[in-house]
Amino acid sequence: MVIKCVVSYDGSQYCGWQVQPHLATIQGEIERVLSMILNHPISIVGSGRTDTKVHALGQVFSFVSDRDLTPDQWKTALNRLLPKDIRIVSASAVSDDFHARFDAVHKRYDYYVSFETENPFVRNYMAIDHGELDIEAMQEAADVFLGVHDFTSFTSAKIHQDKNRVRHITRCEMVRHEKYLQMIFEGDGFLRYQIRMMAATLLEVGHHRLSASDVKDMLDACDKHACRYKADPCGLYLVSVDYKE
Amino acid sequence: MVIKCVVSYDGSQYCGWQVQPHLATIQGEIERVLSMILNHPISIVGSGRTDTKVHALGQVFSFVSDRDLTPDQWKTALNRLLPKDIRIVSASAVSDDFHARFDAVHKRYDYYVSFETENPFVRNYMAIDHGELDIEAMQEAADVFLGVHDFTSFTSAKIHQDKNRVRHITRCEMVRHEKYLQMIFEGDGFLRYQIRMMAATLLEVGHHRLSASDVKDMLDACDKHACRYKADPCGLYLVSVDYKE
Repeated sequence: MVIKCVVSYDGSQYCGWQVQPHLATIQGEIERVLSMILNHPISIVGSGRTDTKVHALGQVFSFVSDRDLTPDQWKTALNRLLPKDIRIVSASAVSDDFHARFDAVHKRYDYYVSFETENPFVRNYMAIDHGELDIEAMQEAADVFLGVHDFTSFTSAKIHQDKNRVRHITRCEMVRHEKYLQMIFEGDGFLRYQIRMMAATLLEVGHHRLSASDVKDMLDACDKHACRYKADPCGLYLVSVDYKE
Repeated sequence: MVIKCVVSYDGSQYCGWQVQPHLATIQGEIERVLSMILNHPISIVGSGRTDTKVHALGQVFSFVSDRDLTPDQWKTALNRLLPKDIRIVSASAVSDDFHARFDAVHKRYDYYVSFETENPFVRNYMAIDHGELDIEAMQEAADVFLGVHDFTSFTSAKIHQDKNRVRHITRCEMVRHEKYLQMIFEGDGFLRYQIRMMAATLLEVGHHRLSASDVKDMLDACDKHACRYKADPCGLYLVSVDYKE
């Protein structure tokens, strides 16, 4: 039986999603606990990676179970053994050919920027911006990202994977709250660092250090060196992953 | 010049307020940083202690400054050097005879209980209660605490200080939010563990394991062994300290 799990985690104490030797990672913790329950080593498949200190409300992973446990029993067993900063939100049985990464058709990430410079409780959970932000200018620049584009300018210059850098962004919305800014990004998928680079670029626009037209030029350049901005990972949340029916 | 500071801290990583050798404490961090600025050892006076893992939104402390800095310059200098989980909210000059502990006339503490058992982000910031709580019964029992009482039953049995255990509680209010319960405690002062013991006792009432009349009996007993409940420190926040004009 293939079990699909939705997992929420506070990434503050982890070196990201992906298993790495000698480092605490989310995938590593889940595989450690699953192996304990199953009594043999096991690998899980995540919908994608998240970076060091990045959080998730609805990351998705799957694994093959040879144990006679219902999805709810899996959820309970995992939550009993997992650290408190990693919580299984739900578990369900899915078809044998389900693939958490390849079958994902839509993802939402939110990026949070706090306006409170003297709040000790946000330091691991939001980026901090001291200044006044021009949210309208930010939204105008955000609209540049909408649609189908090659996002080579908004990914890591060092990474040679993701040869196809065309992505379809369906939502890029700036929502101003009283004490923080919420930036909502939705699309069919995102490249490494893409959200953090887009978020940081939009913050530059908010400070009038870049314009929407500068952002368009950066995007059109398809140049790995066009964008030198990358926002703090602690403000980033993988909110949800959707799959084709 | 005597400087009065309001400080907010995330207590998760600290062994409480009070300086202790070889342990990270809030007072210890502030004194370390102040001594760096002043170039000599210095002690600060806090409005009172907070326990390990307890948080503060508005703790108050004071110190004597022989440096020619304005209160705002003190705030900036301290925040530059303090860890990010300790933030000076405001600083002001006060009269030479100001005493942060003896002059405090009113304190507010809030205690938070989350109803979300699978939210990895609340683990250090709220207690968690899985069950349904009878908030009306809790409020009825909370009203028992109002007024002037000897709170011997609601403090540590081991502590011999605080010989006078009479306190005046002016507010004890249960506020139900969608995903959490906020318990507001106000009074002229609180004994060691008092809020955590009252909060845990009220949660027992919420689960119908105690009644308001049981709580009244416990209070009237003035017996250090009457209450065996003490809530998790991470749900507790020192909200504000008021001083006589």
